[in-house]
Amino acid sequence: MKICRVVKPLVSTYRIPEFEHKHLQVVQDGSSQLVAVDAIGCKPDDWVICVGSSAAREAAGSKAYPSDLTIVGIIDDWQAE
Amino acid sequence: MKICRVVKPLVSTYRIPEFEHKHLQVVQDGSSQLVAVDAIGCKPDDWVICVGSSAAREAAGSKAYPSDLTIVGIIDDWQAE
Amino acid sequence: MKICRVVKPLVSTYRIPEFEHKHLQVVQDGSSQLVAVDAIGCKPDDWVICVGSSAAREAAGSKAYPSDLTIVGIIDDWQAE
Amino acid sequence: MKICRVVKPLVSTYRIPEFEHKHLQVVQDGSSQLVAVDAIGCKPDDWVICVGSSAAREAAGSKAYPSDLTIVGIIDDWQAE
Amino acid sequence: MKICRVVKPLVSTYRIPEFEHKHLQVVQDGSSQLVAVDAIGCKPDDWVICVGSSAAREAAGSKAYPSDLTIVGIIDDWQAE
Repeated sequence: MKICRVVKPLVSTYRIPEFEHKHLQVVQDGSSQLVAVDAIGCKPDDWVICVGSSAAREAAGSKAYPSDLTIVGIIDDWQAE
Repeated sequence: MKICRVVKPLVSTYRIPEFEHKHLQVVQDGSSQLVAVDAIGCKPDDWVICVGSSAAREAAGSKAYPSDLTIVGIIDDWQAE
Repeated sequence: MKICRVVKPLVSTYRIPEFEHKHLQVVQDGSSQLVAVDAIGCKPDDWVICVGSSAAREAAGSKAYPSDLTIVGIIDDWQAE
Repeated sequence: MKICRVVKPLVSTYRIPEFEHKHLQVVQDGSSQLVAVDAIGCKPDDWVICVGSSAAREAAGSKAYPSDLTIVGIIDDWQAE
Repeated sequence: MKICRVVKPLVSTYRIPEFEHKHLQVVQDGSSQLVAVDAIGCKPDDWVICVGSSAAREAAGSKAYPSDLTIVGIIDDWQAE
């Protein structure tokens, strides 16, 4: 799993219906920004654990959910290098 | 999911029949260009959300669809860094 | 999907039987070379679309085929950057 | 599989219930740090084998476990380059 | 699939039982070293084809085998660049 920092929510009005109403977050992964499905409810600047690969689907709620990156935990105490 | 910018449609007359008649788009992902299946209908210069991994298949319409990158949403307002 | 250029066929006499008699191609992906299963019949210098992840298996012919990169289309007209 | 060095356990009190009570470890993978599910019981500075992709799920105990990186073995003797 | 060079066998006495008694090989992939399950029987300095993603599981013998990189063929004649 990746260690990312939450940047801000992502607004995408026009998206496939399979995303339902789950929140999407922009997360910082090293020097690049990715989009993750928020499965726990986090806020900007939280350090979070993001799961990818096929595990991201069930972590987002069901095997049919179209996610390849899902936020699955908030890290209690993280010091960025 | 990745944040990409749509470059242009990709024409591939000779391709496997499993792709059906879905549109393919060339998208810019940082410094490299990738091909994504367009599940929503987007146009050049749109900033889009692209899902990869096994989730790209169902996002493109069915579990048997041979996609590893599918455009699943248009971002309402994105300022490139 | 990746945009690759076909380099040459790859000969591997000693390989697992699950590969059957499908052709393997060396393809150039940016600065690195990869091996892809040829599902369409292409030749050196063709610009092709390669699908990876779990979608590469069905694109190669069946869900049990052990491919992680399959050539699924020839691009009609591509100008390398 | 990746060759990683265990850095320290990761504490995440607020996480999805599917993680159960398995231990998470921060591991060093080259120049970046990742989080892996500990399926064997390792300690800081151990050199370990980490499996990713969909295989990480079953390696962590079941097909439904939401891991994309699982520690599956301790290397007997490894000299870092 | 990746083109790798076999470095040496990897010894991991303490590993999950799902690995059974299959041999693990350290392989060189460009500038980094990875661990692959040896499905064919190869030796140091062989140039080999390694399959990743979910296809690595069945290539290693069964859908439940926890591999994300499996050696599936020896290349007859390869000149490193």
